[in-house]
Amino acid sequence: MAIEQQISIDDLCVNTIRTLSIDAVQQANSGHPGAPLGLAPAAYVLWHNFLKFNPRDPQWPDRDRFVLSAGHASMLLYSLLYLTGYDLSLDDIKHFRQWESLTPGHPEHGVTPGVETTTGPLGQGISTAVGMAIAEAHLAAIFNRPDHEIVNHYTYVIASDGDMMEGVTHEACAIAGHLRLNKLVVIYDDNQVMLSGPTNVAMSDDVGTRFEAYEWYVQRVDGMDRKQVQDALDNASQERERPSLIIARTHIGFASPLQDSYKSHGSPLGAENVAKTKQNLGWQWQDPFHVPPEALNHMREAVQKGQQAQQDWQQRFSAYAAAFPDLAAKWTEMLSGALPQGYDTTIPTWTPADSKGELSTRVASGKVINAIAPKLPALMGGSADLATSNETLIEGEGLFSGTDRVGRNMNFGVREHGMGAILTGMALHKGIIPYGGTFLIFSDYMRPAIRLASLMGVRVIYVFTHDSIGLGEDGPTHQPISQLSALRAIPGLTVIRPADANETAAAWRAALANTSGPTALSLTRQNLPIIDQSKYAPATDLERGGYILADAQGGDPQVILIASGSEVPLCLQAQGQLAAQGVRARVVSMPCTEFFDKQPQSYRDQVLPPQITQRLAVEAAAPMTWYKYVGLNGAVLGLTHYGASAPAKVLFEKFGFTPENVVTQAQALLGK
Amino acid sequence: MAIEQQISIDDLCVNTIRTLSIDAVQQANSGHPGAPLGLAPAAYVLWHNFLKFNPRDPQWPDRDRFVLSAGHASMLLYSLLYLTGYDLSLDDIKHFRQWESLTPGHPEHGVTPGVETTTGPLGQGISTAVGMAIAEAHLAAIFNRPDHEIVNHYTYVIASDGDMMEGVTHEACAIAGHLRLNKLVVIYDDNQVMLSGPTNVAMSDDVGTRFEAYEWYVQRVDGMDRKQVQDALDNASQERERPSLIIARTHIGFASPLQDSYKSHGSPLGAENVAKTKQNLGWQWQDPFHVPPEALNHMREAVQKGQQAQQDWQQRFSAYAAAFPDLAAKWTEMLSGALPQGYDTTIPTWTPADSKGELSTRVASGKVINAIAPKLPALMGGSADLATSNETLIEGEGLFSGTDRVGRNMNFGVREHGMGAILTGMALHKGIIPYGGTFLIFSDYMRPAIRLASLMGVRVIYVFTHDSIGLGEDGPTHQPISQLSALRAIPGLTVIRPADANETAAAWRAALANTSGPTALSLTRQNLPIIDQSKYAPATDLERGGYILADAQGGDPQVILIASGSEVPLCLQAQGQLAAQGVRARVVSMPCTEFFDKQPQSYRDQVLPPQITQRLAVEAAAPMTWYKYVGLNGAVLGLTHYGASAPAKVLFEKFGFTPENVVTQAQALLGK
Repeated sequence: MAIEQQISIDDLCVNTIRTLSIDAVQQANSGHPGAPLGLAPAAYVLWHNFLKFNPRDPQWPDRDRFVLSAGHASMLLYSLLYLTGYDLSLDDIKHFRQWESLTPGHPEHGVTPGVETTTGPLGQGISTAVGMAIAEAHLAAIFNRPDHEIVNHYTYVIASDGDMMEGVTHEACAIAGHLRLNKLVVIYDDNQVMLSGPTNVAMSDDVGTRFEAYEWYVQRVDGMDRKQVQDALDNASQERERPSLIIARTHIGFASPLQDSYKSHGSPLGAENVAKTKQNLGWQWQDPFHVPPEALNHMREAVQKGQQAQQDWQQRFSAYAAAFPDLAAKWTEMLSGALPQGYDTTIPTWTPADSKGELSTRVASGKVINAIAPKLPALMGGSADLATSNETLIEGEGLFSGTDRVGRNMNFGVREHGMGAILTGMALHKGIIPYGGTFLIFSDYMRPAIRLASLMGVRVIYVFTHDSIGLGEDGPTHQPISQLSALRAIPGLTVIRPADANETAAAWRAALANTSGPTALSLTRQNLPIIDQSKYAPATDLERGGYILADAQGGDPQVILIASGSEVPLCLQAQGQLAAQGVRARVVSMPCTEFFDKQPQSYRDQVLPPQITQRLAVEAAAPMTWYKYVGLNGAVLGLTHYGASAPAKVLFEKFGFTPENVVTQAQALLGK
Repeated sequence: MAIEQQISIDDLCVNTIRTLSIDAVQQANSGHPGAPLGLAPAAYVLWHNFLKFNPRDPQWPDRDRFVLSAGHASMLLYSLLYLTGYDLSLDDIKHFRQWESLTPGHPEHGVTPGVETTTGPLGQGISTAVGMAIAEAHLAAIFNRPDHEIVNHYTYVIASDGDMMEGVTHEACAIAGHLRLNKLVVIYDDNQVMLSGPTNVAMSDDVGTRFEAYEWYVQRVDGMDRKQVQDALDNASQERERPSLIIARTHIGFASPLQDSYKSHGSPLGAENVAKTKQNLGWQWQDPFHVPPEALNHMREAVQKGQQAQQDWQQRFSAYAAAFPDLAAKWTEMLSGALPQGYDTTIPTWTPADSKGELSTRVASGKVINAIAPKLPALMGGSADLATSNETLIEGEGLFSGTDRVGRNMNFGVREHGMGAILTGMALHKGIIPYGGTFLIFSDYMRPAIRLASLMGVRVIYVFTHDSIGLGEDGPTHQPISQLSALRAIPGLTVIRPADANETAAAWRAALANTSGPTALSLTRQNLPIIDQSKYAPATDLERGGYILADAQGGDPQVILIASGSEVPLCLQAQGQLAAQGVRARVVSMPCTEFFDKQPQSYRDQVLPPQITQRLAVEAAAPMTWYKYVGLNGAVLGLTHYGASAPAKVLFEKFGFTPENVVTQAQALLGK
């Protein structure tokens, strides 16, 4: 058992982090004590000697970002936040993992000041950090001028072996190396123990060599040795080409009787082992949550240091604003996240006279992106190797790369999950409104990242194209069935499936205006008719989520047809055929159930009058979404099986997505 | 432009593969011509000189497995299948990507003979192949005896740069190295071009070094040089320790005017370029789909060779059966996938007198696994580093590893997605009934693999524990909300959320009996009361998906309470409280909506009588699933927001999952 012999102030601080952490886990009777014990020295060196932050202003734009990717070690972070002077009290520490406390089980952005991103699901933190580093590099390139550096900060990560095993980390770190994000510095907590045993029961990879293959700068140090950590961080900060991985060999559960055992990983140590750990650390105090005043004072130097740093930056920014007033104004606007006045005035309006009367919504989306991009400099994004299919390219802009930091187009490679997490990091950094495209089917690959973005409520726009069997020949492997319902089930995520080009424009406006969470756009591969706004309701009604696109003529509707996206035109045709058969049908376009559900009851009752229970929802996807709106007397024309490989038109016909079948189904409802 | 100068029979075969492929893409006017042009030489060497298969019996158990992970190159595979004599005609080739053809856009297992697994979504094929190699190694260890080898085959993969970028590949290949799967051989089609451009716009990783870090045997060859490919495959077949990666430098769109351009990747070449390609190849025939008889004869040698190989194996198996009749019988039974007679007789039945009257369903699941494991030798599985939490360990069995091939426990590491694909591969191989556990929240990481298993209809059992806010302190990062609805939206997947220990036993029986698709078990972390079967309906009614657990007393029900899992006991309590208030409530336990939906209308109407529209569904999750059953007059007590970090009991109370609130909600319905 290693025992620290001499208690320097640094040692004292390290041990304060440790004892606070294990006391809090013990008190909660739940949590992960092992990692904080092993990581405290490295984290202390990073936070005390490198990390640029002002505990009094966690929003200072030029702060370094710190991401605890090993989110289960949350008490390490909470100890650091409290000790360095963030707005977090010792009482908050004592309420670790309790109802409405500021110290939840895993770090949550928006709950605890200083938590840059929500972590816990492994692989997400480190991958999100890549997005933060991209945002920094891009904004630095756009805004910095000789002798005027207003964007210059690092992104630091502490990651675990679990992070290293997760696939999303591979995706994000491979592209981080490709993009030469030299200001991204990852400390890998190489404690060689995972939750269920030593890592060698499941992991033989040589992580260092692997990251060298990604073109990272890899250093290997004894993570319990502060000097080695200090030197490695020094080296990393001077690296000009590559992201850094510092493999820090640590000892989980350090100084506890369970050191180096998985038993210290995910459960409280127990009162007796807590006492023994303190004894082994040479800790003199018996009472839990003891914070030696000299340790607190020493770590609280962060406040003065941070305020000074921010003040210096503020002066630099003032000088910058004087020298480059336009740039400074642009910077302020971009950082604010606000949409510039009139940013959307060049978005086209389409009529049936345009484009031979039809356009795929993906193409419409591409035209919207290109209409707004010049006026919305914060807009930046790309695709997971499907840019031409997803129509995500901003024309006239370069590709963001290791050599071009100004480019606003991103090529994420075939790395959907990494893209998802990176987009979140770009949004969290601020200054960027990120978007990313892939086929809707591959939203499945991104779900953990989409969910965390939704939980955090960050503005990210997913451009999901090829959104049904309408993609045709690629077949069932590529045809989304469950994805629309599965995405709509995610709290905080807005899913919009526009019915034509004009609804697509409205969808983009809504997505950009949605600053409280991500938005997924569901867009067609195939052409759709442009709905005549002189004849039908305006596409701007999309804001309400669902609206009467075409009402029944000559009396109250007998049946309501509810549809989204490519199935809306089908219903318009069916409405005509039903009218010819003497049936009055209302067509409701429902591009966004989340928006609709937020409308007042009176509006919803106006669109879907309670007394009209003959309702048919039509969407070429799993029907689950729609039962809420059609009820027991209604029906859903959806897909409860997979698609097939054939031309799109054949598939729509074979699977019953024709005006004729909509008519048949509607008549069946009326005959019930 | 490289042109093959001398037309040997091998060259002719290679060019036949090429021309068939590009002709089919051209005829379909859709598909990926580039990869087959570049890959034909390597694929030809593999199929003609190494791959052990019998085109006349694609089910022969000891065949080598071939997985085209780069599924978009499907025409390469279809050409090989046709030319080597599988039950696939030239006419099928001509109907590439057409309705009901045997040649869909991406290879589909179960549609085309010889297709071992459905591929297209990148990363899935190679990761599934790892599962096949695991199954082979395990079955070989169990069954082979000195001088009696009945299991001895390789798993070959052709993978693309997209596969290499996907995270799931990292997960599966890292564990493949760890497990020392030396009979897994991957040819990496290093054509340096992806769909949207050269790979170097998004990819700088050194794939070879990365795989060396995974402890793979890496060779680098000119993939257009058959001799080099031959030698590399020879070396790989002799490797006794490591899986093999053969990095084959190829040229996408070889011999076409678009060679080495991304333009040859995902679109037909065009008639003119097809003609030029044929010219460049020295191809003498103008008519599309021309197959020179000498090429066909040469490749059809595979039939005779394969039949001979299978016949030899059959003789070996007969000798084996004579020497080891018990083992042979066991082998036959395991390969059949049938459940042995009486395999489930030792599954316990619980009464309220057991375990102080309560048990978590995850613990009950662990007891079921251990009850059946001795009698069901095909059962093999584990967890993504959460074995003790998921209760997936088979006691008394070893850990499957590089040195212990007999062990039936698997530790997948923190690699949920890789685990998902591997489980599919184990099931596809046959001989194994695989299961894998993680927290329900992390089912999101596995969705692409779950979806493909559902599309293929393979028997895999997912053990998803910690299935609600009932997991408590870990907080919203770990609490599933959308996952249950999102999983139920997947066609072909069966989701079962048992309400107590006995329903858990019934759920396992149902999952094992479900040979037409995967089953996801949703299990609690927290204890649940054991429902008294002497008082309530038997848990075996789970087979019907939903059933009347406790009917109203003294008359027809006024309200129906529908619940699953941990919310069922809540409803039983509420039923009592409602009765005390003079309200007759029926409690329906609905562990599996998929099973319920398959029941006859008469049964469904019996459980949920159409005239009783006051229905309250209770599930601590996103409500989407339940509107189908409650209709417009009913309500769902669910969660439309994220959870929180606090003890489970606090969360259930704060979020309204109490008998009292169920009563309030039910009364509100009646007051409507």
